[in-house]
Amino acid sequence: VRAIVGVAARYRIPIVPRGAGSGLSGGAAAIEGCVVISLERMNQFLEFDPRDRIVHVQPGVINADVTDAVRSDGLWYPPDPASSAFSTIGGNIATNAGGLCCVKYGVTADYVMGLEVVLADGSVVVTGRRTVKGVAGLNLTGLFVGSEGTLGIITSARLKLRPRPAPAGTIVAFFPSTAAAGRAIFGLTAARVEPALLEIMDHTTLTAVDDWKRMDLDRDAAVLLLAQSDVSGSGRAEEIIAMSRVFTEAGATYVAETLDDEEGEQLLAARRLAYPALERLGAAMLDDVAVPRSRLPDLLAAIPVIADDRGVLVGMFGQAGDGNMHPTIVFDRNDDESYRAAGLAFDDIVTCALKLGGTATGEHGVGLLKHRFLERELGAAAVGLQRAVKRTFDPLGILNPGKAV
Amino acid sequence: VRAIVGVAARYRIPIVPRGAGSGLSGGAAAIEGCVVISLERMNQFLEFDPRDRIVHVQPGVINADVTDAVRSDGLWYPPDPASSAFSTIGGNIATNAGGLCCVKYGVTADYVMGLEVVLADGSVVVTGRRTVKGVAGLNLTGLFVGSEGTLGIITSARLKLRPRPAPAGTIVAFFPSTAAAGRAIFGLTAARVEPALLEIMDHTTLTAVDDWKRMDLDRDAAVLLLAQSDVSGSGRAEEIIAMSRVFTEAGATYVAETLDDEEGEQLLAARRLAYPALERLGAAMLDDVAVPRSRLPDLLAAIPVIADDRGVLVGMFGQAGDGNMHPTIVFDRNDDESYRAAGLAFDDIVTCALKLGGTATGEHGVGLLKHRFLERELGAAAVGLQRAVKRTFDPLGILNPGKAV
Repeated sequence: VRAIVGVAARYRIPIVPRGAGSGLSGGAAAIEGCVVISLERMNQFLEFDPRDRIVHVQPGVINADVTDAVRSDGLWYPPDPASSAFSTIGGNIATNAGGLCCVKYGVTADYVMGLEVVLADGSVVVTGRRTVKGVAGLNLTGLFVGSEGTLGIITSARLKLRPRPAPAGTIVAFFPSTAAAGRAIFGLTAARVEPALLEIMDHTTLTAVDDWKRMDLDRDAAVLLLAQSDVSGSGRAEEIIAMSRVFTEAGATYVAETLDDEEGEQLLAARRLAYPALERLGAAMLDDVAVPRSRLPDLLAAIPVIADDRGVLVGMFGQAGDGNMHPTIVFDRNDDESYRAAGLAFDDIVTCALKLGGTATGEHGVGLLKHRFLERELGAAAVGLQRAVKRTFDPLGILNPGKAV
Repeated sequence: VRAIVGVAARYRIPIVPRGAGSGLSGGAAAIEGCVVISLERMNQFLEFDPRDRIVHVQPGVINADVTDAVRSDGLWYPPDPASSAFSTIGGNIATNAGGLCCVKYGVTADYVMGLEVVLADGSVVVTGRRTVKGVAGLNLTGLFVGSEGTLGIITSARLKLRPRPAPAGTIVAFFPSTAAAGRAIFGLTAARVEPALLEIMDHTTLTAVDDWKRMDLDRDAAVLLLAQSDVSGSGRAEEIIAMSRVFTEAGATYVAETLDDEEGEQLLAARRLAYPALERLGAAMLDDVAVPRSRLPDLLAAIPVIADDRGVLVGMFGQAGDGNMHPTIVFDRNDDESYRAAGLAFDDIVTCALKLGGTATGEHGVGLLKHRFLERELGAAAVGLQRAVKRTFDPLGILNPGKAV
């Protein structure tokens, strides 16, 4: 990597670092005249220390392989993007990937203890530490996480592990209105319940899933909520009961629960099919906005209005617990008018999220796709400061130019 | 703040931002010819949103006042440095303060969602967001946290809150050797127990406390461990029982436990008295090193050797769960030789921690006190990159010069 970057720096050739290429915002997409550095084959485990709960890996290691490698020691690497079976740790770090368990366990940034990075001049820097706590010097590790390859190329990462939680109990509930679902979500906060997973699907999405797989979902429901508890011991059953009570009091029309791991996976199946079910209906444009939890009902209410206004179908699903939603616009790939309408709906959704105090991207990254919203979200001063930092790290502008910042 | 910084920039006058002045590494100490900007009276709550679990405060708000302000809504601001009754949020953020509950709940950095910062040219930047997740742009918030006033002056902070956990159950155990205590600490990991607090005191410290307060501590013990569980429901009692079993199997000579909140506070009293008890014996020099958990027994074993070698008394206490130790060197203030020996022991301890793969500062900050260890810990490349970032933010070098970076 040093050698390639050295040559690229000498001839001012743009470099695009790339893991599995599974990113959803175009961060790893090649640009005119660039060199793509694929990190896919740098996939070695460098160290695993179960006592210190640390694993040190090269960037091309697949996310799920980390979890598999540490399982027999009772440990776990929590960040679980939907792409965990094929996305790489390097890409996860570059985009600060999230996932379903973030609501309780945080995002990729919370699990990166240190990095080895090749800088724009071909030199190498090692950041971070081996200790849980430590405040010596500026937090360079945190700056590289989520920088989408614009500040340097990650060549290894030291990751923090956690004890593997107990098998989860699962609860699924149908609600007659978005307002009722909103009450349920806030009811959990008020009851001090902290679900290990809290997913939401709207009527359009659950109908699409049921049309496809005939899962006996309640097709009259406006919203489906799915939650899990992984508290140890008897606390798990208690937490599931508490969630059931909150959902019922909020007006759920149907609630099902299980403490069995496998049955729980079956209940989760509907959620896992959300995107492919929508994709069956046409070409799909997947968005990734997040709003403050309190504004989630507003976003839920706005989506059908936008869909109607632009004449497209929008299904919504996502992480109700942290307000990160994935409105998915279904359009006709062979119809230019439909494609244009989908693009307008996409922008409307981002604009709506920003108006609600939200962000243009909750976990997928800025890449090329969200670049035009950056200044509107962050303000000119913050974007200016970010670009100054970018210039400090990459004065020639050869690292993934035109992306992220 | 903008006006003062503007004038200081024009005349190139160094600025030292200061909260309560309770820092332990000299980060807020005045330097020759500087202007000290005290943020103490910027102590307003700007916003509290219990639904989004966010509080927005000025930098002079006292740490404990945040916790008090949100308590009636069932919420909690976890970072709890020992100075929580008098240190300010601004100072906590500047040093990325830790505390006793970090072992389960993380440090200050984990709770800062966004900042308003006056930059070195007198302009203002707002960083971060209102959403739980969000990956738009570089993580400037995380860069300011822990930068000890060298990149800008924090004028407000948006903090993340958590549901207040259940009242804790508490367990205290005495061990005949550091090896037995080490087995106990790792036994918790192996048993997948995640204590909400896990504190350690060595023989010197517990004897000093008992000499002072006659608390019937086991004066023959080499090590005292204190742990808490705040899991909800019946899980708490189960976790306390699991810890008790681990401690007994590791060779504890005495174990006491309680599920009662007040009794738990009484058991914790010995730990809270650790530093003042050592301070009674002479002048005290408080260190703050952290080592990987697995090397904690090595550090525990090395301290008496260093103390003996330098002819000083060293008492050790700290966060066993995350390897952050506070070896406290007791010396005679009126004896130059004793003061010199204490300084040498202080350096020996830091050097030992670094050799064990640790850090010179786990939570107190670099300030002036640890500046000379920075390059040895981080390497020349990382320090060089940090200084480049510092120059980008502060080209005139007027923000807290000579500190942290």
